[in-house]
Amino acid sequence: MSNSKKLRVGVAGLGTVGAGLLKLFADENGRLNEKLELVAVSARNRGRQRGVNIERYQWFDDPVELAANPEIDVLVELIGGSDGPAKRAVETALERGAHVVTANKALVAVHGTKLAEVSERTGGKLLFEAAVGGGVPMVKALKESLAGCRASAVAGILNGTCNYILTEMEQTGRSFEDVLADAQRLGYAEADPTTDVGGFDAAHKLTILSAIAFGARPDYDHVRIEGIDRVSLTDIRLAGKLGYRIKLIAKGALEGGAVSMHVSPALLGFDHPLANVGGSLNALVADADPVGQLTFIGRGAGEGPTASSVASDLIDLAEGRGGHAFGRPLAQLAAAPRAAPAEYGRFYMRLMVQDKPGVVAAVSDRLAHENISIESFLQMPGHEGPAVPIVLTTQSCARASLEAAVAAIERLDVVAEPPYVMPIEESGHRARTWSKG
Amino acid sequence: MSNSKKLRVGVAGLGTVGAGLLKLFADENGRLNEKLELVAVSARNRGRQRGVNIERYQWFDDPVELAANPEIDVLVELIGGSDGPAKRAVETALERGAHVVTANKALVAVHGTKLAEVSERTGGKLLFEAAVGGGVPMVKALKESLAGCRASAVAGILNGTCNYILTEMEQTGRSFEDVLADAQRLGYAEADPTTDVGGFDAAHKLTILSAIAFGARPDYDHVRIEGIDRVSLTDIRLAGKLGYRIKLIAKGALEGGAVSMHVSPALLGFDHPLANVGGSLNALVADADPVGQLTFIGRGAGEGPTASSVASDLIDLAEGRGGHAFGRPLAQLAAAPRAAPAEYGRFYMRLMVQDKPGVVAAVSDRLAHENISIESFLQMPGHEGPAVPIVLTTQSCARASLEAAVAAIERLDVVAEPPYVMPIEESGHRARTWSKG
Repeated sequence: MSNSKKLRVGVAGLGTVGAGLLKLFADENGRLNEKLELVAVSARNRGRQRGVNIERYQWFDDPVELAANPEIDVLVELIGGSDGPAKRAVETALERGAHVVTANKALVAVHGTKLAEVSERTGGKLLFEAAVGGGVPMVKALKESLAGCRASAVAGILNGTCNYILTEMEQTGRSFEDVLADAQRLGYAEADPTTDVGGFDAAHKLTILSAIAFGARPDYDHVRIEGIDRVSLTDIRLAGKLGYRIKLIAKGALEGGAVSMHVSPALLGFDHPLANVGGSLNALVADADPVGQLTFIGRGAGEGPTASSVASDLIDLAEGRGGHAFGRPLAQLAAAPRAAPAEYGRFYMRLMVQDKPGVVAAVSDRLAHENISIESFLQMPGHEGPAVPIVLTTQSCARASLEAAVAAIERLDVVAEPPYVMPIEESGHRARTWSKG
Repeated sequence: MSNSKKLRVGVAGLGTVGAGLLKLFADENGRLNEKLELVAVSARNRGRQRGVNIERYQWFDDPVELAANPEIDVLVELIGGSDGPAKRAVETALERGAHVVTANKALVAVHGTKLAEVSERTGGKLLFEAAVGGGVPMVKALKESLAGCRASAVAGILNGTCNYILTEMEQTGRSFEDVLADAQRLGYAEADPTTDVGGFDAAHKLTILSAIAFGARPDYDHVRIEGIDRVSLTDIRLAGKLGYRIKLIAKGALEGGAVSMHVSPALLGFDHPLANVGGSLNALVADADPVGQLTFIGRGAGEGPTASSVASDLIDLAEGRGGHAFGRPLAQLAAAPRAAPAEYGRFYMRLMVQDKPGVVAAVSDRLAHENISIESFLQMPGHEGPAVPIVLTTQSCARASLEAAVAAIERLDVVAEPPYVMPIEESGHRARTWSKG
């Protein structure tokens, strides 16, 4: 292919992922260079050491100027943040009909509908495989591989920082605070870790996946978000004794035409397809008819995996693939009614109580009053301190009933702090029966 | 979109998958009907009950005539078999520039290069997601998602029948022959099960995946194939005691520019990403730089999963995606030199020996003579019969040395039958370290 036919690429943002992408472009024999040509870059600091030579590319101080440059066919946006220069650069490129490849989950989750509108109007395509799941091709799988299916649920481990912290707590017996502090010291977690441990990053990613899977407009404001900061070592240990592992689960479901989205720590049985996804890995389980359940696992972040996803989007553009931003024309994306997370389910509850006779009876009574049956009850032996933890799991019950019971239990004199409740994720209908092949 | 722009589809072969596809087309609100129109069908028996109405479609007795009909834009070939009417129909369609979507792994594995040549010459595209892994989008992942990466290895569980048999043997303690006979009675395995249990079906699929992953021409003749018919309950139990599970693994690797392909029963540590893929599930683990290791799991066969993959290929065609058959132009597909499967590794060996003093010493001696160190040695207690099984695992050694030792051990008087050897699959470089996100 002659140079003149290559798509000309400008990269805005030269952090970890940007440097990884430049390395892929620097490989003369790589696929990227067959069809695309990196011509310009932009970053905050031109002189920073990145392990790659940027002298050969045109330099822009301002990413919006890079995006506006008619010499650029594709803007790769790796700046981050839902607003500010990232948004301005992406809008500028799309408005003039240039394509955009971005790893920016916040931008796509919050402004996805608006950006898709511009994309449809001008013909500039918007691709964002790298925004979700790092190197795991979750976006393409939902957009293209499941195009003939109807998805009913997606559930994922979408934040590597949280998964790393929970895995480390379980394996080393250290507290949340300890592991987080270590991760911060090592540069694995931000100084302000709220975006990750608060569940907001996972919620951005869930917003994107749900929009594609369920054919609905991205709607970040309706994600119910709970972080992992209340998960204690006690929870991890006692859940383990009951046969569960605790993970931050991002879950979207389509039921009766309504979409629910929920990010929350949850208990998974050891046979759940996400239970053994450890460390910084990311994973997605999608349920769709008639394909059944599909599971995707891989490295959820970092230079190589994320740059690989950016590269696959670029090659899709160069080869004429890459359709609508969310898989269908905007007009077909429902502004679906929103639903609360599943109304029924099993739950885990941890109580800190005074170690007195009658405590278990009092708690059981409040649950029975709401018609909730207890499945298991466990007290941690040898616990020291003014209050001792007891945990229980319920049989399937209405969430509203559980919330009423929790309020009543919280009012008991012997209960020292608000009960901590997590949902139990069922394994779902995995292929247990046989089929030919 | 107006009807006139829809791609007109003809389906040849109305078995399980064909019926599943017709059901997807019968869903008036499904995505398939937005962009494609099913207009004609062909099968051996027009009157057979299929649970779908075929009266509304044009009927062809001869699939080749269907393929030749200029009213058909896309031929869906679900006949099967590497030669005969399937091949003639596919060639006929491609020769006149019509597109082909097929689930026929034997055809693509054996004649893939020839068919890709015709496809490139005429512009008729050839897609075959459904040929490998049922509903799991392995082909698209390797072709498109890893387009910016260099794959070094693919390892998969690609035959549901074998995986079902091995899983049942382990879980129920029944013999290979028992489980197979049951599966045949239930219609899960063919009357002649050779294609499945002999490893040939997995080899067809491995041929296709290796061609795409490594950018080489499909080369079925160079797959080293071993089936599961020599795997005994003793192997499953003793491997279990040593911390391994036995699976039929299809493995391709690119090393020093040479491609090796190997289908064989192998031992996987319980922490291997494929070890917990049970029953009729299929799975693929791909190692590629710089994305790392990716794992895909799902239902490997059956009406729904396979029809879903056919549908995704059809929608790709309708939306202008679907590039080269094997991901690149044929001229770029290397006729790569072939290599034998990995020259070094750890191995499992089962011996049937007379229960006499000195047996272990004699076996150890033959191994030591080839510089092979033993990692573990295990004898099954309470075994009855003229010969007793002992199993051992080696430390990493050269395959050639192992083969020499096996020949020497086989010549020992106390050894009752040829030793049975399986490779031990290492877990590979999974993401153990942390990375941001």
